[in-house]
Amino acid sequence: MPELIDTLLTGGTVVTMDGDGRVIEQGAVAIRGRDIVAVGPAHELREQFAAGETIDCAGCAIIPGLINAHAHVPMSLLRGLVADVQLDVWLLGYMFPVESKFVTPEFSYVGTQLSCAEMIRSGTTTFVDMYFYEDEVARAADEAGMRAICGQSVLRFPTPDAPSYDKGLEYTRAFMQKWQGHERVTATVAPHAPYTCTDDIYRAAAALAAEFDTPLITHLSETARENKESLQERKLSPVAYSESVGAFSVKAIAAHCVHTDERDWAILSKHGVGAAPCPSSNLKLASGIAPFAGMLAAGVNVGIGTDGPASNDDQDLLNEVHLAALLPKGVSGDPTIVPARQALALATSLGAKAVHLAHLIGSLEAGKRADIVVLDLRALHTTPRYSYAPDSIYTQIVYSAHASDVRHTLVDGRFLLRDRQLLTVDEERVKREGQAIADRINAFLGERESNLLDKIVAIGGVQQAEIFEVQVKACIADAEAIAAALNGPAFTITKATERTQYDTYLMFADPARGRVRYREDHRRDPGARLDPKSTLTLTVPAAERDDFPHAVLLSRARYTAPADRSLRFYREYFQPEMIVEVEKQRRRWRVIYKDEDFAINIDRLVGSTEPGPFLEIKSRTWSFRDAEHKVALIAEMLEHLGVSEEQLVKQEYVEMEAKH
Amino acid sequence: MPELIDTLLTGGTVVTMDGDGRVIEQGAVAIRGRDIVAVGPAHELREQFAAGETIDCAGCAIIPGLINAHAHVPMSLLRGLVADVQLDVWLLGYMFPVESKFVTPEFSYVGTQLSCAEMIRSGTTTFVDMYFYEDEVARAADEAGMRAICGQSVLRFPTPDAPSYDKGLEYTRAFMQKWQGHERVTATVAPHAPYTCTDDIYRAAAALAAEFDTPLITHLSETARENKESLQERKLSPVAYSESVGAFSVKAIAAHCVHTDERDWAILSKHGVGAAPCPSSNLKLASGIAPFAGMLAAGVNVGIGTDGPASNDDQDLLNEVHLAALLPKGVSGDPTIVPARQALALATSLGAKAVHLAHLIGSLEAGKRADIVVLDLRALHTTPRYSYAPDSIYTQIVYSAHASDVRHTLVDGRFLLRDRQLLTVDEERVKREGQAIADRINAFLGERESNLLDKIVAIGGVQQAEIFEVQVKACIADAEAIAAALNGPAFTITKATERTQYDTYLMFADPARGRVRYREDHRRDPGARLDPKSTLTLTVPAAERDDFPHAVLLSRARYTAPADRSLRFYREYFQPEMIVEVEKQRRRWRVIYKDEDFAINIDRLVGSTEPGPFLEIKSRTWSFRDAEHKVALIAEMLEHLGVSEEQLVKQEYVEMEAKH
Repeated sequence: MPELIDTLLTGGTVVTMDGDGRVIEQGAVAIRGRDIVAVGPAHELREQFAAGETIDCAGCAIIPGLINAHAHVPMSLLRGLVADVQLDVWLLGYMFPVESKFVTPEFSYVGTQLSCAEMIRSGTTTFVDMYFYEDEVARAADEAGMRAICGQSVLRFPTPDAPSYDKGLEYTRAFMQKWQGHERVTATVAPHAPYTCTDDIYRAAAALAAEFDTPLITHLSETARENKESLQERKLSPVAYSESVGAFSVKAIAAHCVHTDERDWAILSKHGVGAAPCPSSNLKLASGIAPFAGMLAAGVNVGIGTDGPASNDDQDLLNEVHLAALLPKGVSGDPTIVPARQALALATSLGAKAVHLAHLIGSLEAGKRADIVVLDLRALHTTPRYSYAPDSIYTQIVYSAHASDVRHTLVDGRFLLRDRQLLTVDEERVKREGQAIADRINAFLGERESNLLDKIVAIGGVQQAEIFEVQVKACIADAEAIAAALNGPAFTITKATERTQYDTYLMFADPARGRVRYREDHRRDPGARLDPKSTLTLTVPAAERDDFPHAVLLSRARYTAPADRSLRFYREYFQPEMIVEVEKQRRRWRVIYKDEDFAINIDRLVGSTEPGPFLEIKSRTWSFRDAEHKVALIAEMLEHLGVSEEQLVKQEYVEMEAKH
Repeated sequence: MPELIDTLLTGGTVVTMDGDGRVIEQGAVAIRGRDIVAVGPAHELREQFAAGETIDCAGCAIIPGLINAHAHVPMSLLRGLVADVQLDVWLLGYMFPVESKFVTPEFSYVGTQLSCAEMIRSGTTTFVDMYFYEDEVARAADEAGMRAICGQSVLRFPTPDAPSYDKGLEYTRAFMQKWQGHERVTATVAPHAPYTCTDDIYRAAAALAAEFDTPLITHLSETARENKESLQERKLSPVAYSESVGAFSVKAIAAHCVHTDERDWAILSKHGVGAAPCPSSNLKLASGIAPFAGMLAAGVNVGIGTDGPASNDDQDLLNEVHLAALLPKGVSGDPTIVPARQALALATSLGAKAVHLAHLIGSLEAGKRADIVVLDLRALHTTPRYSYAPDSIYTQIVYSAHASDVRHTLVDGRFLLRDRQLLTVDEERVKREGQAIADRINAFLGERESNLLDKIVAIGGVQQAEIFEVQVKACIADAEAIAAALNGPAFTITKATERTQYDTYLMFADPARGRVRYREDHRRDPGARLDPKSTLTLTVPAAERDDFPHAVLLSRARYTAPADRSLRFYREYFQPEMIVEVEKQRRRWRVIYKDEDFAINIDRLVGSTEPGPFLEIKSRTWSFRDAEHKVALIAEMLEHLGVSEEQLVKQEYVEMEAKH
């Protein structure tokens, strides 16, 4: 009398990923409720069981559902937002400003739905997440029928969902309580990274994870710089630091682990910490290539993740498995390392250990949950099929199969994808809603990109400060005569300095956008501070007045402030159409002339074909009336200094140099 | 009055890849016959032209057809044959034996059809090939409607289609004559690589390419070893060598260029040689990562290829473009290099220069051929779409889009793929025919894998040689007493040597398969040659007789020969289930006893827990009668040497050691 079951997947190549590495040609998997009840040859299982439904899997591989060990699933809404920039530009210029403005509960919910749809389509059944409003991630994952470990991010800075980390930890506790005991969704805590947290955050997170018996999720050793700074500050690698603050006293999952070494692996292995490199993201953000072979040899439970779709840009875990097989070969010169079978284990049997769910998932065995993917191997790109060697099915899955070959996806015995149709997410609706949110971000960024001031404010968090200046320039013959005249009775010198100024102008085809000047100012006079001062100045054309006598210009700086990032950052961030460099030796005086404050410069351009030296007289102004008064004073000063009308120049240095 | 055209692709984002990098949102491409007649905003082109057929491309990107600059398309039939092994095992153990046995005109024709179907589906419109029976490649490519540069391989060794390179060059000339003047298919010559060719081959190939004005195709600097050997042998890098033998006096395409440096780039750039790295294959075979950024900065015309599907394992060029964008970032630490737009150029505008077809293809411009791909960007993994930044369409195509997003593929204005339906290749038939050929290879390999002798013969090209030996072994107390007895009157010593022998046994669960012994034999006696001798011996159980007296064994070696490859090679090639190592110090005598030749060994096992030393007496035998005669002589010899029955041992050393 055959046993009753719900579903029999039959006729495919069953790749169990069990301890014996069983592969069953013409195999079958029997499912009752949420569980696998048997795995074996199809003819045996067909006799043994009476299935409510029999699914013909001829020509397909039946594999364990894939486990994405590190993701930020709501970030699907930021996919393709910006690419090919440095990490700081990516984070500070784009991700942080956009997230602080747009990440809401709705964002996390819709973004997760979009990601769940993509993951189900590409064979992922379990994901480990770290983001904001993680309760919404959990809700969307649950509704989609997926298995998920949802980590609420905690940072020492304000986040979109918490003004302080205390509040963040409170939110996290409530979140963990709410989802406690759920069949598929684990709510947990995710201290973001050692460089964004404090010892206290890690300790509090470990206490929460211990109390609820959930995994603690964190980022470790993503970049070489992170490691270097950790060693400088704490004399500990990020892994060793995490151990020291108790993060590994509980089940832990450490994303990335790109820059880890033998000592780190010993720690990870000792505590059973799951490591989750994210090959595409690690390449794209230029973090490097994780030491897969080393970690595996050291007995670390290595999983694999997609990371967030803002840096990947997809959530195709098979592609990550493919990279995990390819990259270690390419960089080591040894084509035998991380063979296909081991690469697939990263997303299945070993991945399950990495995320602390090996008792439930990761292999096709009686008693485990029925999280199963059926891959159709009858595509052009998976033809032909070789089977003479026992490992050829792994080769075919890892090196040839694509996400688009996923035909069925089941979690807990339930079809989430069936014959390539999504059953638990309304694909068209979620694409529409996702695009609607992206449209708002797109409009915000479009506006910001066209407005340099907005773009500066976005990264600086500073206030706008308009400065008008009147300014005259002259090409002079004898700098020493001018300097001597300044020491005459007409002027009171309040300060005299000498400097070398390196100015880089970031310019745009449309002059109305203005230009950004990055200045490195080195004082050369005795006793001055040695370290140069960098400033960033946005200048826009002063359309208001262009008719002062004596070649006087009115200039308008929309913004000026210390430049706390590098020139490289600004160059990449502003993406100018033209860059002009001006280097000058400047002697600078602050003088009082008839109770008004003026700056007087004598400049010698370095490496320029322009004549010179040049004299500049400048003064800040606040009204047209004040400007007219100062223009009159400037005319007098020019006379005192012996400068004639013919010597006056109406061009700025950058305009002179831009001609060349 | 609107102009008549055949086809208007309208409403998509037209990514022209032209010199100005024009991207036209809501754009259109007008096609008449084989040519693009206009590219512009959809509303303008709809007014300007009356189209026989208008194709709505809303939500899609319209891009130039992709150019696969290096492939071996018939090798699709070998996809997934073997993976995760060293290059020598891959080539000598699998590719060469299989190719020499199975590559026929039919193989090249069917394999090309399969590849064309896959390439058309994934957006490739032009490919550059190098294989055997290239006339069949050209025929299949022509029938599929693709554009192709088909290079007939020439090597200094016999190939499946030519017993010598003279014949190969004759075949090539006839092939080139036959296809001369074809609209889409260029027949040309492909000297395989500097390490497989001669100067003469390169010179003859360059002469052919000059005569027919076609590109010369070759492999250069794929591996570090190739470079090292080239520098040792010729004091020239492979690139410099190719220049020296005239290969760059004609249009040339150099595949791989992984291990090239500034000097090589200067040569490639000077001669306009196209470089075609193959990222997936270069990783999988552990060759390395090509210096994309360096070559691009040096002005080399860099294309990109898939290489053969036996090492890739797909022909998905978008995936290679993706890797070309990711890998240089990951290894350099600079995420700004090879940005998406430049990566896409490798497969389009710059790729066209690399394959010397930039006058026809590579960009969407009036006057060029209508080789066009329409990518549907409305999938989950390409949602949402950002458009605020000019380069975001490249980001989306390079980092998010997959081969499965290709909706239409046109070559010369003709649809080869339309709404994801192949129009010029019968997909089901070609999959069936491809699998049928693979089934024969699969059977051959299955047979070979189960038969160690076949597996040895496959790589050795040697003849089988059966050797039977009678052999007796004893555990002795006093080696010196035996040595003294051998100097007695009963024996005539013809040779005496001392050796250290390192034996590695490759063993299998099924003892009937036999075992393979790899021996390194070091002579230690004065005056002997210093270099060790390596031999490979296959021993199978001698089922014929097991009942000789005096613990005499009959052993049967199916094969023994110098081992001309490394132990590592054999270990990987035979994939033994168990490996046993035996090291021994051997004193060996060749003696004549009663006119028969015997070998007598006194062996001391090194690092073993077995007692010893051991005495062995062996002799070759050819018949049971001869064997019985020698067994009787051995009994006498044992008496002469003072060895009793109790001292006899019926185990071989490997069996003693295997127990531990």
